[in-house]
Amino acid sequence: MVSLNSDMGEAFGIHSFGHDDALVKLIDTANVACGFHAGDPTGIRETVQKAAAAGITVGAHPGLPDLVGFGRREMKLQRDETADIVRYQVGSLVGFLDAEGLPLDHIKPHGALYGMAARDEEIMDAICDVAVQYEVPVFGMAGTAHERVADKRGVPFVAEFYVDLGYRADGSLIIARRPRATPVEEARARALKALIEGLATADTGEDFPMRVDSVCVHSDTPNAVEVTEAVRAVIDSLTPSAI
Amino acid sequence: MVSLNSDMGEAFGIHSFGHDDALVKLIDTANVACGFHAGDPTGIRETVQKAAAAGITVGAHPGLPDLVGFGRREMKLQRDETADIVRYQVGSLVGFLDAEGLPLDHIKPHGALYGMAARDEEIMDAICDVAVQYEVPVFGMAGTAHERVADKRGVPFVAEFYVDLGYRADGSLIIARRPRATPVEEARARALKALIEGLATADTGEDFPMRVDSVCVHSDTPNAVEVTEAVRAVIDSLTPSAI
Amino acid sequence: MVSLNSDMGEAFGIHSFGHDDALVKLIDTANVACGFHAGDPTGIRETVQKAAAAGITVGAHPGLPDLVGFGRREMKLQRDETADIVRYQVGSLVGFLDAEGLPLDHIKPHGALYGMAARDEEIMDAICDVAVQYEVPVFGMAGTAHERVADKRGVPFVAEFYVDLGYRADGSLIIARRPRATPVEEARARALKALIEGLATADTGEDFPMRVDSVCVHSDTPNAVEVTEAVRAVIDSLTPSAI
Amino acid sequence: MVSLNSDMGEAFGIHSFGHDDALVKLIDTANVACGFHAGDPTGIRETVQKAAAAGITVGAHPGLPDLVGFGRREMKLQRDETADIVRYQVGSLVGFLDAEGLPLDHIKPHGALYGMAARDEEIMDAICDVAVQYEVPVFGMAGTAHERVADKRGVPFVAEFYVDLGYRADGSLIIARRPRATPVEEARARALKALIEGLATADTGEDFPMRVDSVCVHSDTPNAVEVTEAVRAVIDSLTPSAI
Repeated sequence: MVSLNSDMGEAFGIHSFGHDDALVKLIDTANVACGFHAGDPTGIRETVQKAAAAGITVGAHPGLPDLVGFGRREMKLQRDETADIVRYQVGSLVGFLDAEGLPLDHIKPHGALYGMAARDEEIMDAICDVAVQYEVPVFGMAGTAHERVADKRGVPFVAEFYVDLGYRADGSLIIARRPRATPVEEARARALKALIEGLATADTGEDFPMRVDSVCVHSDTPNAVEVTEAVRAVIDSLTPSAI
Repeated sequence: MVSLNSDMGEAFGIHSFGHDDALVKLIDTANVACGFHAGDPTGIRETVQKAAAAGITVGAHPGLPDLVGFGRREMKLQRDETADIVRYQVGSLVGFLDAEGLPLDHIKPHGALYGMAARDEEIMDAICDVAVQYEVPVFGMAGTAHERVADKRGVPFVAEFYVDLGYRADGSLIIARRPRATPVEEARARALKALIEGLATADTGEDFPMRVDSVCVHSDTPNAVEVTEAVRAVIDSLTPSAI
Repeated sequence: MVSLNSDMGEAFGIHSFGHDDALVKLIDTANVACGFHAGDPTGIRETVQKAAAAGITVGAHPGLPDLVGFGRREMKLQRDETADIVRYQVGSLVGFLDAEGLPLDHIKPHGALYGMAARDEEIMDAICDVAVQYEVPVFGMAGTAHERVADKRGVPFVAEFYVDLGYRADGSLIIARRPRATPVEEARARALKALIEGLATADTGEDFPMRVDSVCVHSDTPNAVEVTEAVRAVIDSLTPSAI
Repeated sequence: MVSLNSDMGEAFGIHSFGHDDALVKLIDTANVACGFHAGDPTGIRETVQKAAAAGITVGAHPGLPDLVGFGRREMKLQRDETADIVRYQVGSLVGFLDAEGLPLDHIKPHGALYGMAARDEEIMDAICDVAVQYEVPVFGMAGTAHERVADKRGVPFVAEFYVDLGYRADGSLIIARRPRATPVEEARARALKALIEGLATADTGEDFPMRVDSVCVHSDTPNAVEVTEAVRAVIDSLTPSAI
C-alpha cells in the first residue's frame, strides 16, 4: 500500500510555514527536520507531539548544515562527516520520539543531501550506516544510488514519487531551491498516472517508469494543503477498503 | 513631524513573514534586521533594495546572537561585547546601504537588547558607541536609559510609541516573545491618544505621559498591514498639508 | 568511591584545545559537549571513540545555544525550551554512544546552564526530565537546586567538587568566563582537603563543608593535564587497593 | 615590493590558535576572518586593534558560511548570494576598521571560496562587485579566474604565492582541509625560488612560472611562526634598503 509523506517542522524559531496543522491530518508519515537545515529543539518537540496526537508515524529528515540555504545548496562532504551529520540529527530526533513513546519510522535525507546521495554511493553509504544502526528504511528515488546502496547494505528502501517537483527524461529529479507550486489538477493527474500506470512524465514531455512506494508532497509551497488533499484522495480511491 | 517605523527583513533564508512588500509602502523608515536575530545577507540586500525603491529610509536593527529565540531572550553581555555585536551588525548593513547609495538613518536595538538597553546604562552606552561612529540617532523609549544615555553621549534620540505592545503603569514596555495582534480599532485609538493628547494607557488601565517622535508597528503579527494602514492614516490626518 | 571527571570534546570544527588525548587516560568519565556551546558531529564521534578506546564512561554535557560565548553567558530560558535544548543535545550524543556500543553515563549541564540550574528549580527540573528519560544521574553541586530537585525527582545525584574554580563562603561556585589556571600544588591541596576532611575553602578564606562524589577538572586551562594528574594521584592514594 | 600576508583572527569565541600575537609583528598585512568561517565580533575587534597597534594594514578575509568546516568545504552558491555573503562580511569588518581609523586594504576570499573563485568567473565577478564598491585590490592566484576577472573589472590584482600549500603542475593550488606544516627550510627555499627565479615547484616535481606580489603564510599550522620568520627574512634580504 502506497503511503503519503510530507516534510514537517521545517520552521526555525519564530519563523514557520504554518501548514503543519493541516498536513498532519492528511499524511501517513512525517519527515521531521532535525535542526541543520531547519528545525529547532522546541519546534521538533512540538512537531513530534502533533504527529503523535494525529496518530501518524515520524521519520528523520536530516539535512546539510545550512540554515540560510535551507539545506538546498550542495556542499562537498567526506563520507565520514556525512555519517556524523546524519547520526547527530537522527539521534536528536530519536530523543524527542522516545519522550513521546514513538519509534523512528524511517530516514529521508533532505534537499541537496538527498540529491547528493542519489548520485554518490559514498554519501548514500554513510546515510545507510545510520539506517542500519536504527534498523529503519531509507526513503529515496528508485533507480539511483539511493536504491542501489540500500539494497547492497540490506536497508529496506521506500521509493518515492514527487508530485510537485520536475523530472528529467532520465528519471532524475530537478531539485529546485524552492519547489514549484503545482496546480492541484496537475498534481492529481501526476499521482493517478504514477499509481495506476507506474509512469511519470519528464518536464520535457517523455514518459518513463516510476516505482512508487510513497508519494511525497512538499510543505513549503503556498498550495501545499490543497495538493496534499488531492493526493490523499487519489491514494484512498485506489486502496481497497479495510472492510 | 512624527514618523512611522517598522521592522523589515526579519526573514531568515527561505523563512519569511511576507508583510514587507505591503509595509514598505506605508512606513517612513525601516529597521532592518542584520543577521543575529534574523536576516541573512541576501535578505538584507533585498530589503534594502525594496526600501530604496519605495523611497523610505533605512536604519539598523541589531539584535542578540540568538536566531532560534529571535533575539527575544535576554543574555548576559559585557559592555564591550555588546558594542562589538552592534558594530558588527551595523557595519554589515552599511555595506549594503552603500551599495545602493543610501545613508544609514538610525540605529534601533531589537527585542531583548532593546529592553536591556532601556534598563542598563552600560548596554545603552555600548550602543551609543556605534551611533557616535556613524553619526546617527538611536530609537528608544523616552524616560529610560535609552534617553538618558543618548543625551549624555550627545546622540540624537527618537522617542518611540508602540501601538502593538503593552505598557506597565510606570511607562515600561512589556516585551513579549511575540507581539500581540492588536485590533485595528484599538491601534487607531492608541495612536490618536498618544499623538493628540500625549498619553498612553497601561495594560492595568492607568494613563501616563508618552512622548512620541516615531510610532512603531511590528511586522510579525498577522494583521500588521491593517494596523500599519490605520496608524499611517492617523499620522497623515494630523500632519499639516505640505501645500 | 570518588570519580574524576572532565569535559572533553569542547572543540568546534578545526578549533580544538588538544588536551583530550592526555586527559582521556587520566579520568574516569568524560562530559562530552553536544554541539550548542561546543562540539560538532565529527568531533563528538571522535571524542566518543577516544573514550571507548580508553575504557572510560561518557556523560552528556549539554549547554546553552551560544557558540561564541562558549555557553558561559546566561540566557533567559523558559522551562520547556530548557528541556527541549537538553533533550536535543543528549539525544544527539546517545546516537554516537549507541554506534560505539556505549551507554550514557550521566548528564552534566555546562557553564551558565549549570549555574542557572543550581539557583533555579524550574531549570533543574527541566534537566531532570531528560535524566528520568534516560535513567541516568545528574552531576551538580551539593546543597543547591541541583541536589534538591534531583532528590525530589528521584534522579541519582553526583556531588562535584571543582579544584580549578573559586567558591564563595556560602559554598556557591564562581563560574568565570574562563576557568583559572590553578597551580598544581594548590589543586592537590584542595583535592586532599575535600576528600579527607570534607572541606573546601572559599576565595575569601572561610572553610565550609564539601560533599564530593566526583572531582571535576576543566580541560580548557593551559595546565589542565598537570592538574588532572595531581588529582588522579590524590584519588588513587585514597582508594583501597582492589586486592 | 613583495609583501607578506597572513590570515589572522581565525578564532571563534573561546577557541583560538594563539599565533596572532607573534605573526602581527612579522607580516605586512593581515587577512581578517569576518565571522562566516571563523571570527566573532569581539575577536574581530581585538584583531583589528592588534593590527593597528603593530602598524600593519588589514584586509577582509570573507569565507563560506560554514563554521564547522572552517570554510574549506565547497558549497554551490549563486552569483548574487556570493556577492551578498562577501558584502556582508566586508561591511562588518569595515565597521571595526572605521572605529580604529584604519582603511580597508584589500579583499582576499578564504578557503573554498578562494578556490571556487579561481575556477569560476561568476564567483570571482561577485567578489569584484565588493572590491569595486570599496576601491580595494583582490588577492588571488595569477593565471586563474582571479586575475582574469579582476583585470576585466578594473580591480587591482595582487598575485599570491603560498609557501605552505602544494601546487599541481598546471599551477593550480591544492587547497587542503588543513594546510600542511611546512618544514622551515623548505618554506625558505620555496620563497627564495619564487622571489628570485619566479618559479614554483609542483608536488609532482615540475617547475612552473610564479608571479609573486605577496607571499602568504597560513596561521593555523603548528610551526606558522617559524615559517613566517623565515619568509620575512627572505623578503627583507631581497628588498633594497630604504637608506
